[in-house]
Amino acid sequence: MSVDEESRPARAKRLPREVRERQILDAAVTVFSQHGYHNASMDEISDVAGVSKPMIYAYLGHKEDLFAACIRREASQLMAAIADGVHAEAPPDMQLWHGLRAFFRFVGDQRESWRVLHRQATSQGGPFSEELLAMRTRAITLVDALLVRSATSRGHTATQSTEALAAALVGAGESLADWWLDHPDVPEKVVASWLMNLVWMGLGNLVDGAVWTPTGE
Amino acid sequence: MSVDEESRPARAKRLPREVRERQILDAAVTVFSQHGYHNASMDEISDVAGVSKPMIYAYLGHKEDLFAACIRREASQLMAAIADGVHAEAPPDMQLWHGLRAFFRFVGDQRESWRVLHRQATSQGGPFSEELLAMRTRAITLVDALLVRSATSRGHTATQSTEALAAALVGAGESLADWWLDHPDVPEKVVASWLMNLVWMGLGNLVDGAVWTPTGE
Repeated sequence: MSVDEESRPARAKRLPREVRERQILDAAVTVFSQHGYHNASMDEISDVAGVSKPMIYAYLGHKEDLFAACIRREASQLMAAIADGVHAEAPPDMQLWHGLRAFFRFVGDQRESWRVLHRQATSQGGPFSEELLAMRTRAITLVDALLVRSATSRGHTATQSTEALAAALVGAGESLADWWLDHPDVPEKVVASWLMNLVWMGLGNLVDGAVWTPTGE
Repeated sequence: MSVDEESRPARAKRLPREVRERQILDAAVTVFSQHGYHNASMDEISDVAGVSKPMIYAYLGHKEDLFAACIRREASQLMAAIADGVHAEAPPDMQLWHGLRAFFRFVGDQRESWRVLHRQATSQGGPFSEELLAMRTRAITLVDALLVRSATSRGHTATQSTEALAAALVGAGESLADWWLDHPDVPEKVVASWLMNLVWMGLGNLVDGAVWTPTGE
């Protein structure tokens, strides 16, 4: 799309609200990623989006609201990606594997989004940490459901420990993704398989040289 | 100790600097834990410490510096507790187990410190997130050393993956500790054994009903 084509419809009044909001959020994620929350300017977001500042304020509020909206949208896309990746009829290990692949693929494909979502929200604190907390809670619920399905499929009773294990797993994934941002040379499938081996095989098997590998892929 | 005995030496000028600083930091952790960073007042910290505000400023700086010093001190105590708990001559699983026990014991014994250290620093962001990042880096280095020892003791070559696994493990511990703050009814040993089983046995063994238990305890 040329610059002319891109800016013309954006200035038009007839665009549906969700299209306009998407343009604004796309621009905001780009600008926040490049400059950080504090140095990002609403003028630049307005320029990149091709939407006037008053219209941005009217649609999505001021800079703080806009940043929170970015976190919410990126978090929702991440959850959708993971949920799409997991097939409930697959064996538990393959469900977990596909979930991890989807997670690391999201982080890898959208490193800039992940920086906005995670690192910057963490370093900004305040209202953004609540958005992050809400996202983590959703992620834990998602993983917990997978663990409960695994346990009950083997005839075990689900206990309080599955929620705790889900919390541990989500923390492990977040932390490893953060490590990965600083080690972009490691392929996505490799980093996913490290976490899969840790949480599926366990260190006890790994130090003995056992390895988990996906079947039927 | 009566109030008189407690406040008299604190007001005296002859106390060594490290004793005075410890009094100030103890008071600061208490007050920050109770009221949160924003609502904590230097007046209250001064009252609780029995140290005048000008002296606090002279020794440890303003509120932001004081909070950062609290994070640094609590982080150092946590690292020392974990390092003390781990005996390098024990088998790898027992080293990990003792490290996890030390970690959860620290969090359990000092829930308020942990809130200051972790939750509040996370929600405040800014300079505090750098203190937290430094603490996480130290924790990852500590766990990495343990994993490298485990791997080489079995004749494997240590690879880049141990640092990644250490990052995942630290994230799992942090996240589970956070979950535990909201579930204080779960005993320390139980929460530690959940994480131990996840990372040592792996979910693959757990869903088959296998369990890791400490030996020789």
